[in-house]
Amino acid sequence: MPAPRTRAASETGDPLLLTPGPLTTSRSVKQAMVHDWGSRDANFIAINVAVRKHLVEIANGGAAYSAVPMQGSGTFAVEAMLTTFVPRAGKVLLLVNGAYGHRAAKICAIAGRAHLVHETPEDTPPDLAKLDAALAADAGITHVFAVHCETTSGILNPLEEIAAIAAKRGRRLLVDSMSAFGALPVDAQKLQFDALAASSNKCLEGVPGLGFVLSKIEALKAAKGNATTLVLDLHDQWQALEASGQYRFTPPIHVIVSLHKAIEEFLAEGGQKGRGGRYAENCRILIDGMRALGFKTLLPDRLQAPIIVTFRMPEDPNFKFQAFYDALKDRGYVIYPGKLTVADSFRIGCIGRLYADHMRGVLAAVREILAEMKVSRLAPAGAEAA
Amino acid sequence: MPAPRTRAASETGDPLLLTPGPLTTSRSVKQAMVHDWGSRDANFIAINVAVRKHLVEIANGGAAYSAVPMQGSGTFAVEAMLTTFVPRAGKVLLLVNGAYGHRAAKICAIAGRAHLVHETPEDTPPDLAKLDAALAADAGITHVFAVHCETTSGILNPLEEIAAIAAKRGRRLLVDSMSAFGALPVDAQKLQFDALAASSNKCLEGVPGLGFVLSKIEALKAAKGNATTLVLDLHDQWQALEASGQYRFTPPIHVIVSLHKAIEEFLAEGGQKGRGGRYAENCRILIDGMRALGFKTLLPDRLQAPIIVTFRMPEDPNFKFQAFYDALKDRGYVIYPGKLTVADSFRIGCIGRLYADHMRGVLAAVREILAEMKVSRLAPAGAEAA
Repeated sequence: MPAPRTRAASETGDPLLLTPGPLTTSRSVKQAMVHDWGSRDANFIAINVAVRKHLVEIANGGAAYSAVPMQGSGTFAVEAMLTTFVPRAGKVLLLVNGAYGHRAAKICAIAGRAHLVHETPEDTPPDLAKLDAALAADAGITHVFAVHCETTSGILNPLEEIAAIAAKRGRRLLVDSMSAFGALPVDAQKLQFDALAASSNKCLEGVPGLGFVLSKIEALKAAKGNATTLVLDLHDQWQALEASGQYRFTPPIHVIVSLHKAIEEFLAEGGQKGRGGRYAENCRILIDGMRALGFKTLLPDRLQAPIIVTFRMPEDPNFKFQAFYDALKDRGYVIYPGKLTVADSFRIGCIGRLYADHMRGVLAAVREILAEMKVSRLAPAGAEAA
Repeated sequence: MPAPRTRAASETGDPLLLTPGPLTTSRSVKQAMVHDWGSRDANFIAINVAVRKHLVEIANGGAAYSAVPMQGSGTFAVEAMLTTFVPRAGKVLLLVNGAYGHRAAKICAIAGRAHLVHETPEDTPPDLAKLDAALAADAGITHVFAVHCETTSGILNPLEEIAAIAAKRGRRLLVDSMSAFGALPVDAQKLQFDALAASSNKCLEGVPGLGFVLSKIEALKAAKGNATTLVLDLHDQWQALEASGQYRFTPPIHVIVSLHKAIEEFLAEGGQKGRGGRYAENCRILIDGMRALGFKTLLPDRLQAPIIVTFRMPEDPNFKFQAFYDALKDRGYVIYPGKLTVADSFRIGCIGRLYADHMRGVLAAVREILAEMKVSRLAPAGAEAA
């Protein structure tokens, strides 16, 4: 293979991460970590207060909500949310159309929380009429759990409609908005969720190591004693942070300080509108460019969230995914394998510290690599049109 | 108060952390975080392999042990250890002489693990004859849990003796070596523990955000299905890391890469012998200097671990702890309040990126501040002699 002709423009020389996360972050967000703080330090406590306040504001939570951070990762926050808010005698209806919905079911099974699964294929949103009927049929269901953007496919699930049905039926809503929060609108006044989980290292563009759960304070109060673990108890975590500003257990200080810097940069970009607008442009450039090269997306545009795009694997026998992946990595672009059961595929992300020129760069690299691989027939027969 | 005359020498201008942790780290350990990696990146996976291998080697674990990292903090690792290794039908005897022993009891209570507590005062090691008798009396006890260095007081618990009694009685040993691992010898061939928990940000001098559990592989295999949570399941975490080199859930990548750098620096310092030697010197300088000023330690030297030292609060009414703390902080030294029930006290740590000159620096600062506060009578009447 000849020497690569194109090369990603990266602030720190690292490959750009066009993945569902962890993502490329700004140099300034990383540079914020080159200090040490004590966990009881007044400056660090002030940073925690600011981070929690900003997170509530981004969701328009007002005085009714509190942001409860959770050490670990996004899944730690999701497990904390399900096991803190669903009481031991509760029952949760899980809307599943990908790996993250299945993971929630596994959490409930291990923690002994009664649950029902409403599953649709990975390219299909939940059937809202069936959701409504399921809630009408079973008065024992206390909670509904939905994944905002399911990164297995990149599908945008209809969160507002799900919230409206849950509210109409008097059930409480729990949301996994891991890959969407910060990029897609989340308005707590409209959605009235009890809890919504996300993390430091997706659309807020911090480094990984912290999840958080935006929680209705009334629901937090009612959740006392629900948890089946010490560390994942969001009620106790919230109480400690409110009482002293301190975490119960050592926080990932450097991760939190870098999240604070990342949120400052998020707000400077215009908050969710600005951040979401950049990602939407990235996604548009990517899809248009890939389609111009002959690739097909899994999803029709109306179901596509501007987070990560699933492309069907080309049928051309000259196309070898591993070689394609490696050649992109050589040029400084890291993409992601597919995780679908419905179709052979790969994924390219639009989120993180990526701009329009980066997306044009990856398209130029794809074009070069296809030429080198002598790939011509890109779309499988019968692939979904836009 | 006049302007401070002394000032801590810190690589990054941040106050030095003379606390039980998080601690001062080297600039190079923090600088390692100014990059981004994908979680499936081959370089990152190689770093994980190296970190896990080094951790086993530090404990002389050989082929019988595996290091299983756990996102979150040390307490996440301790909860993972107790809930993965103590089966739902097991029973654990907890040796308690401080806050971390009590925390283990709370973990067991919440997770529904049967447990007994053998408690001694904070300045007193466990009664080994009573431990032996308790194990002889109750065949239902499957596990013994001990805290290596209990930072509530700084006491060194007799781990080898505890291990010998557990072995003699055929019970399995679980150890919280959070604040000791890396500084005090841990030899898995002698101690034969089933599991030992520690973290990235104590004596290994990484940043906080990762715990780990050194686990006997035979015990990991036997622990399948024990866990009562998804995220804290060490068996599943181990299986995934062995199978693919990847974490099940997003790892705190920057924290792990900085731990890798910290372990390189640990090995360059001569491993446990070198690191422990530096801390012992720090501790000696601190205790000798504080005693020369008139302070009294809580513990006699034979019980003092070279990790953190508890000093009794002076009785002189001119000594105001908050003013003392603030004046030290102004000079660039962060110390820690006491946590004891047996005596009013404060603590000064000896671990982290601290050297003999830093300890002499804090002593000079203490001397200055005492003069400014016009404190003369330093030791309470009847305080324990060295």
